Amino acid sequence: MTYLDHAATTPMRPEAVAVMSEALSRLGNASSLHTSGRKARRAVEESRETVAEVLGARPSEVVFTAGGTESDNLAVKGIYWARRGTDPRRRRVLASAVEHHAVLDAVDWLAEHEGAEVTWLEADRDGRVRPEVLEAALTEHGDEVALVTAMWANNEIGTVNSVADLAAVAQRYGVPLHTDAVQAVETLPVDFAACGASALTMTGHKVGGPYGVGALLLSRDVECTPVLHGGGQEREVRSGTLDTPGILGLAAAVRSAVGVRERHVPELTALRDELVSGVLAAVPDAVLNGDAGRGVVGGGPSRLPGNAHFTFPGCEGDSLLMLLDAQGIECSTGSACTAGVAEPSHVLLATGSESKAARGSLRFSLGHTSTREDVRALVAAIGPAVERARSAGVPGLRRLSAPSVAKTEV
Amino acid sequence: MTYLDHAATTPMRPEAVAVMSEALSRLGNASSLHTSGRKARRAVEESRETVAEVLGARPSEVVFTAGGTESDNLAVKGIYWARRGTDPRRRRVLASAVEHHAVLDAVDWLAEHEGAEVTWLEADRDGRVRPEVLEAALTEHGDEVALVTAMWANNEIGTVNSVADLAAVAQRYGVPLHTDAVQAVETLPVDFAACGASALTMTGHKVGGPYGVGALLLSRDVECTPVLHGGGQEREVRSGTLDTPGILGLAAAVRSAVGVRERHVPELTALRDELVSGVLAAVPDAVLNGDAGRGVVGGGPSRLPGNAHFTFPGCEGDSLLMLLDAQGIECSTGSACTAGVAEPSHVLLATGSESKAARGSLRFSLGHTSTREDVRALVAAIGPAVERARSAGVPGLRRLSAPSVAKTEV
Repeated sequence: MTYLDHAATTPMRPEAVAVMSEALSRLGNASSLHTSGRKARRAVEESRETVAEVLGARPSEVVFTAGGTESDNLAVKGIYWARRGTDPRRRRVLASAVEHHAVLDAVDWLAEHEGAEVTWLEADRDGRVRPEVLEAALTEHGDEVALVTAMWANNEIGTVNSVADLAAVAQRYGVPLHTDAVQAVETLPVDFAACGASALTMTGHKVGGPYGVGALLLSRDVECTPVLHGGGQEREVRSGTLDTPGILGLAAAVRSAVGVRERHVPELTALRDELVSGVLAAVPDAVLNGDAGRGVVGGGPSRLPGNAHFTFPGCEGDSLLMLLDAQGIECSTGSACTAGVAEPSHVLLATGSESKAARGSLRFSLGHTSTREDVRALVAAIGPAVERARSAGVPGLRRLSAPSVAKTEV
Repeated sequence: MTYLDHAATTPMRPEAVAVMSEALSRLGNASSLHTSGRKARRAVEESRETVAEVLGARPSEVVFTAGGTESDNLAVKGIYWARRGTDPRRRRVLASAVEHHAVLDAVDWLAEHEGAEVTWLEADRDGRVRPEVLEAALTEHGDEVALVTAMWANNEIGTVNSVADLAAVAQRYGVPLHTDAVQAVETLPVDFAACGASALTMTGHKVGGPYGVGALLLSRDVECTPVLHGGGQEREVRSGTLDTPGILGLAAAVRSAVGVRERHVPELTALRDELVSGVLAAVPDAVLNGDAGRGVVGGGPSRLPGNAHFTFPGCEGDSLLMLLDAQGIECSTGSACTAGVAEPSHVLLATGSESKAARGSLRFSLGHTSTREDVRALVAAIGPAVERARSAGVPGLRRLSAPSVAKTEV
């Protein structure tokens, strides 16, 4: 099987599987006062120190959550509520137009339900939010802004934002910036203190850790209203019994990922470049979307090193996906699906694609277990698959597509 | 080690460890369309069917979450928002006064932040909410009530509510009832359809499953606004990448727990009764709090069969806990702690205890791995420990208590 969907989820690293499996059989709620509880607490606190150290944060800035979606919701809603609570004028959210749905839909809900005003920050044709766009929005609305949210790297087309530059602009206006770094942590130099963001989302299963556990890095000086109330386990900002095995797995994975990053990223980039040139050679009219990946942003590559995202003119992405799947090649359309109805990606539309072209797109994402064999398998299969998808046309979509699924951009 | 804190967390059942450990190394996001994704989705849907079958629900009523706290928050806030959205007069929450903090604090937040009015439903001296108390509140406020929330069994003193009777009253007024059944699912006959509740909270790590995964059983005809927005994975009511290994572990645990329940509960009850009589023999002035456990409620025992909760006059619970811990006996005060400052339990205060007595209480909770040796170890140690705690008095608390922890009632 050729797995080219690491951006959706990447295999657990052996270190993470080992530490987590072992912990499943150990007893003790990390909030209990007895010996077993204190041992569990120690494991959690050591994991917190690991996550903090590896990501340039202080341990007290690490709030463990159930994953990226919860971290995004907590940052966006929590900071909005807290800022509006302190100053009722601050009810505007500045959000990039190409965010993940966990941010987009949280922002939309604040607008519909909690009186928020929203300014969508336009992305350029590469999908990047330019600091001058943020500056303009803050000049216009500065004293009514609750927060800014702009992702570190785009989950569909892989474009990297200069978070430090965006955060510097936000700081000048005294506005906290949240960044969804779910896709960034494994392969980009993410440093919480250095980037100047007030809040940063990361999650386990995108770095070789488990599902169901993530973190929000949250500056001590930023107020944040809880989204989940209760025992107050995490700084009174997040409640819920601490998932000790999951937290151990998360810490092991992120430590391993960041530890091998310097060696891994050039290999990954080379594989991805081989994939891109191979696909373009097999399908000459395919279009690579997003940044070309030759630049430097924030001390790292300007595009996620494992990401390749193409439009194949005249194809339905879902048909092509299923044709490749039949050949044992797994990838993603990178587009939102609601109940099996293909909708064009908001990211591609925001970066200037036509709706039809946006529907004919696929994301191939490489990761820590990818090999040249994977790339060769795709390059061999993509030409015939595109040809067949083109001849199948739209009716093929119905026949070939999978049963209905919830919208997701994973 | 003598573990008498199963109500805080109970060891994972071997079936759950096996299925989860194996799944950690399997690939595929359950929302992906390719083969690996569809396999993960199948595992999730089979788990959903298991949970539904075992708890008397339909599969489409099972919403997977990150655990009890999230399920409680989703039910309380989500149903409140949805009902108030449909009818702005419906802004009152009727909540039992002895709920877990995940419910209490969610309700308090709705009152402080979202315009809710709250009626706290008084519990009787056993900690039980009587249907006539609910009836009276609904008679007074019926057409302004958004929801009722009343737990199935109390996490501190183990008292079981007659959820079916409470739900029948709520239904007559057309008001949805949520019940936190976190402590109930393992040992009581919990049947979602039969009980008449509109929403029911359960969580993995209290039934021998993993941390970080739980479920809200939610009737199809009850509107519920999401607490976490995003991909909409769970019926558009809950977003977040599905935790396939955790969900498999949860389903395996709950199936196993319910499968052995009929055989297990009489054994557990006998052990608990032995513990109660042994402790009362060793410390004649100790007081067993809550229901005597001889009655029948909802077709099961009137008290959680693994629960024993005592007040030891003249003791600080924390001191006693640490003295027992030093003997290898692990239990809980069952009281809320904030930053190491012992506060009397709201449950004990609500059931008529004096503040001082409430602080001198311990919960011993037995579970699926408990043995007679555990009971004997406690019975042998409790007398001398109480004696020492009494002579240590209040200053002993400072010396003996653990480092500061967040408030928790686990």
